[in-house]
Amino acid sequence: MNFKKELDNKVEITNKYLEEFLPQPQGYAKVIYDAMRYSSFAGGKRLRPVLMMSAFEAVGGVGEIIYPFACALEMIHTYSLIHDDLPAMDNDDYRRGKLTNHKVYGEGLAILAGDALLNLAFEIMIKAAKKHKSWEAIDAIDIIASSAGVKGMIGGQVVDLISENKNIDEDILHYIHENKTTAIIQAALKAGAILGQGSNEEIKALERFGYCLGMAFQVQDDILDVISTQEELGKPIKSDERNGKATFVSLKGLESSKEYVKLLSQDAAHQLEIFKEKGQFLSWLSEYLMSRTY
Amino acid sequence: MNFKKELDNKVEITNKYLEEFLPQPQGYAKVIYDAMRYSSFAGGKRLRPVLMMSAFEAVGGVGEIIYPFACALEMIHTYSLIHDDLPAMDNDDYRRGKLTNHKVYGEGLAILAGDALLNLAFEIMIKAAKKHKSWEAIDAIDIIASSAGVKGMIGGQVVDLISENKNIDEDILHYIHENKTTAIIQAALKAGAILGQGSNEEIKALERFGYCLGMAFQVQDDILDVISTQEELGKPIKSDERNGKATFVSLKGLESSKEYVKLLSQDAAHQLEIFKEKGQFLSWLSEYLMSRTY
Repeated sequence: MNFKKELDNKVEITNKYLEEFLPQPQGYAKVIYDAMRYSSFAGGKRLRPVLMMSAFEAVGGVGEIIYPFACALEMIHTYSLIHDDLPAMDNDDYRRGKLTNHKVYGEGLAILAGDALLNLAFEIMIKAAKKHKSWEAIDAIDIIASSAGVKGMIGGQVVDLISENKNIDEDILHYIHENKTTAIIQAALKAGAILGQGSNEEIKALERFGYCLGMAFQVQDDILDVISTQEELGKPIKSDERNGKATFVSLKGLESSKEYVKLLSQDAAHQLEIFKEKGQFLSWLSEYLMSRTY
Repeated sequence: MNFKKELDNKVEITNKYLEEFLPQPQGYAKVIYDAMRYSSFAGGKRLRPVLMMSAFEAVGGVGEIIYPFACALEMIHTYSLIHDDLPAMDNDDYRRGKLTNHKVYGEGLAILAGDALLNLAFEIMIKAAKKHKSWEAIDAIDIIASSAGVKGMIGGQVVDLISENKNIDEDILHYIHENKTTAIIQAALKAGAILGQGSNEEIKALERFGYCLGMAFQVQDDILDVISTQEELGKPIKSDERNGKATFVSLKGLESSKEYVKLLSQDAAHQLEIFKEKGQFLSWLSEYLMSRTY
């Protein structure tokens, strides 16, 4: 199996379905559709949809139900980035080398575009659950909703926001990373496994895999913010330092952070053993992500 | 039946369930729970939950499933107000005589509190659908999600925002009113009727009743913004004029606006005829709302 080709294929499928699920710009409110599409097609890595599809396949899932869910996850991710970039939050002008949503459409429309993407994500998932008359789909929505809310992603964003320019300890940093990024990645894998009708053992293994991968990915982000160049990263480097944000690197040092990523990667690999050949793509993907430089 | 007492009772029930469904402030992200609760208990009229419960009862609905949905609707309403009040949108410092969310918690947390309320609304509805194993509940979520999104409430907010200080025509004003306020009120009645397992005829009548009531309510709002006092209204009057917003009153004149409210009220009353005695509360409520001065 050519894994890189398989990754590109999954990204392409995500883009195709996103194109379908994002309404065409039209009518008096046309500009909001443009704003939603602008950030949805601004060069995202589609990590969450790819992970979800891969978990679905690892447990032997078949059928179309995974695509609306994969797109919904990407929409939730995109909405969180649009709001996170706002002046009242991280105040970033660029993301992935492109102007952020509010720099193009203004703050008011950027707030509404984020709201609209979150709302649309639930719309799409509910319609898919109805269409397939699937209670697994309802379970999946429940997991995604919980991981995106105050006890997950939003909670992480809140603590991240109120911790700026403060000396925070490792517990709080762990809380931020576990919730701001990892919760949704974990949900991608767990919900994918549930939609694919995996066994309880498989669902648990993929959930733990998601935890390890999500945390490793976040610590890696902290590392890259320090050692990468703006050209490679597509956004200003050392933004964490400028924003007075504590990171794994600032709290634990560069070497210790790299060591932690390695440990998490090993744990992640271990979780995939029960899937044998069906886990190979996730195994490759996890190594691929850990060796990235951008 | 003492209708005013029945209204107070429904408001009280909504408050009781909101108290239950809004998580208790705790943990590192405690402040966001505070912010969510602040706006949720800032004196809202609970119009949407009351309408939803009333539609449920008008079709003979029984059981607990209506309460999480009624609370979810109120959370969606509250999130939209928090975001609408932000400096990038309407820039209001007061609502219902109290400081707006961002004036108390800052813009970043206000954005996140709004996001969190929208997300929580879906969480609560999905959990209720799971608990009751009810496909009517899935239908209701679908209706609410659609009416809250770009083809409903958010679309209305967008056109409202981009129309500031512009000469807009009646078609655009209709679009704004139909979508910004009416869509959700209509959804409250339709979803309530579906959750109560009403007949198709009953669902249709309540949907139309919701349209008439929502539009009348909005035009009434425009009227009150001109003829009421700040003390009565609990917020600055003539804010539409200050914000350069076209209203029914500015486009059609005060008398013609009052006449339109009357016509809509008559149509609304007509829709309730099939419910006979079970429609009496909605009938009284609609008249009560149309005669309000705040």
